[in-house]
Amino acid sequence: MTARDTSNEEQILISHGGGGEMTRRLLAEHIVPPLNNELLGPLDDSAIMPIAAGRLAFTTDAFVVQPLAFAGGDIGRLAVCGTVNDLAVAPAIPKALSLALVIEEGLPIRVLDTIVESIARTAREAGVVIATGDTKVVEHRRGDGLIITTAGIGEMRDGVEFGLERIGSGDVVIVSGRIAEHGLAVMSAREGLAFDTELESDVAPLNHLIGRLFETGADIKFLRDPTRGGLAGVLADLAEDTGCSIELDEDAVPLSPVARHTAELLGLDPLTVANEGKVVIVVAERDADRVLKACHADPLGQHAAIVGRLTETQPPLVELLTRAGGRRIVQRPHGEELPRIC
Amino acid sequence: MTARDTSNEEQILISHGGGGEMTRRLLAEHIVPPLNNELLGPLDDSAIMPIAAGRLAFTTDAFVVQPLAFAGGDIGRLAVCGTVNDLAVAPAIPKALSLALVIEEGLPIRVLDTIVESIARTAREAGVVIATGDTKVVEHRRGDGLIITTAGIGEMRDGVEFGLERIGSGDVVIVSGRIAEHGLAVMSAREGLAFDTELESDVAPLNHLIGRLFETGADIKFLRDPTRGGLAGVLADLAEDTGCSIELDEDAVPLSPVARHTAELLGLDPLTVANEGKVVIVVAERDADRVLKACHADPLGQHAAIVGRLTETQPPLVELLTRAGGRRIVQRPHGEELPRIC
Repeated sequence: MTARDTSNEEQILISHGGGGEMTRRLLAEHIVPPLNNELLGPLDDSAIMPIAAGRLAFTTDAFVVQPLAFAGGDIGRLAVCGTVNDLAVAPAIPKALSLALVIEEGLPIRVLDTIVESIARTAREAGVVIATGDTKVVEHRRGDGLIITTAGIGEMRDGVEFGLERIGSGDVVIVSGRIAEHGLAVMSAREGLAFDTELESDVAPLNHLIGRLFETGADIKFLRDPTRGGLAGVLADLAEDTGCSIELDEDAVPLSPVARHTAELLGLDPLTVANEGKVVIVVAERDADRVLKACHADPLGQHAAIVGRLTETQPPLVELLTRAGGRRIVQRPHGEELPRIC
Repeated sequence: MTARDTSNEEQILISHGGGGEMTRRLLAEHIVPPLNNELLGPLDDSAIMPIAAGRLAFTTDAFVVQPLAFAGGDIGRLAVCGTVNDLAVAPAIPKALSLALVIEEGLPIRVLDTIVESIARTAREAGVVIATGDTKVVEHRRGDGLIITTAGIGEMRDGVEFGLERIGSGDVVIVSGRIAEHGLAVMSAREGLAFDTELESDVAPLNHLIGRLFETGADIKFLRDPTRGGLAGVLADLAEDTGCSIELDEDAVPLSPVARHTAELLGLDPLTVANEGKVVIVVAERDADRVLKACHADPLGQHAAIVGRLTETQPPLVELLTRAGGRRIVQRPHGEELPRIC
């Protein structure tokens, strides 16, 4: 799956982005049918949908991942999940996404088709509609194969109050599954690494899993999807924002053997590598077990584990209790090591 | 204003997009302060805002205009207006926008600053907030200086019923001002054309003007901003969708002398050239005068005019009564002539 193909297959042309007949046909033949729904169908400039009074969550993300496809997913699945997950941790019930495609001239239409189908499939999986969209084309070497920007709206969950001031010493940190698999899968695809056991991106919509957590009635205090910056980034932010330290148990952090091995090969700390189908949960200690059980009952939460606890230690830092019995401070990554991962 | 500058001034680096400390600083120093508001400030993944029950309008557009700045505007102003105007014609009251930036490595930070300030100024002018955003960086020659994707949400106007079935023979077509100025200004900047009288893009937020139209209580049946495809595109769609023909009076279509001259130089039909601050209005004949007066009372509607009428002629076509006294069929542009105009 490359941005430009030298074979004779049909490719995106600049004229597909002119807003005229060619654009119409591209939309009618390749983009709208797989995504089709009542909101998108009319191809009006705005989708119009009923909304209940309350609080709305609104988010956006641009996706520039390379390569466009990797083990376990592609840029289309990533674009849907990224926005669905940002809404889900708000915590909102995701309702509708917008989809803006910026296609580089020369992209094989077959590649576009595959990605649009992946978007459609992932949206169905998450239970959201692609309500509105836009498609533009840029010249060769003015784009990057395909850049996707999604925005999303969701209805905030009633009766849930997140607030950093409610988080304190004794609260428990749960991670919903094995970490680092998205970033490692993309880096492996980029580096051309191959393994006996395939490492796949974890990219998945988390809204159903998160719904299960709230159904338990547990006192959930914080949710965050550990994307860029990984688990380390989320916990470093949390320590800074709450003024509490976090004790993280290395042995308890879910990590598959193949991910551990790949991270070693690539020289990466799994704690700082991006996830796209995991959620970090902070919950009152008394409720930790039922939240963990709710995770385990969901296909995406099989490997969920309690990985740490908030403490009163000052200054507020994230401290890793290492497998070897030592302690080290976990810091937020500086940011240069993994560009173009989402 | 170029995407890559050879001077020593500060430029965007790949590490600005890594999601770490460099990204944080770029946001904190260059992006968030000009745009700042209560929703964006916390830099959470989602903005959370109160919403009244009713119908919500949701839209998105990706902007790939080149050059990034042109007489009368820039890609930032364009990105805000494009989305605000799509909401305004829904017809909705625009409330909040999302802003996703995909920056090409090497973009001078001075250029980014200018565009972010333009976004902030235009959002204030339109009365909308930039509620949520995302920033990514791609390598040199993998992007196009700056690609901006905005999505927008608005509250649908109560008591307004648009519906193609309500449009019929005798209804009047009004254009809110002089046409073709956006497309011609961008093409002139691209071609390096210079004129004694400066031709400026009309890019502007139309929501306040459209609000005035509804205040008249007139029976407004259709609104559309004639962007890509121009007035010709909007009217060709309208004829096809309503099954009515449209008689368009060439002499009545507002067109400045400099725009007429520029279109001739560039070999373009002004009817097919994009506008970014104009609205096409279909109104019951009895209400045409008060809608026209409401336009004239707004700074953006000074040159508004009645340009045509719907008729029962079959098959449904757009017919231009030319200045020379002839008739010609107006068709939707095929789409290749003006790429990268928005």
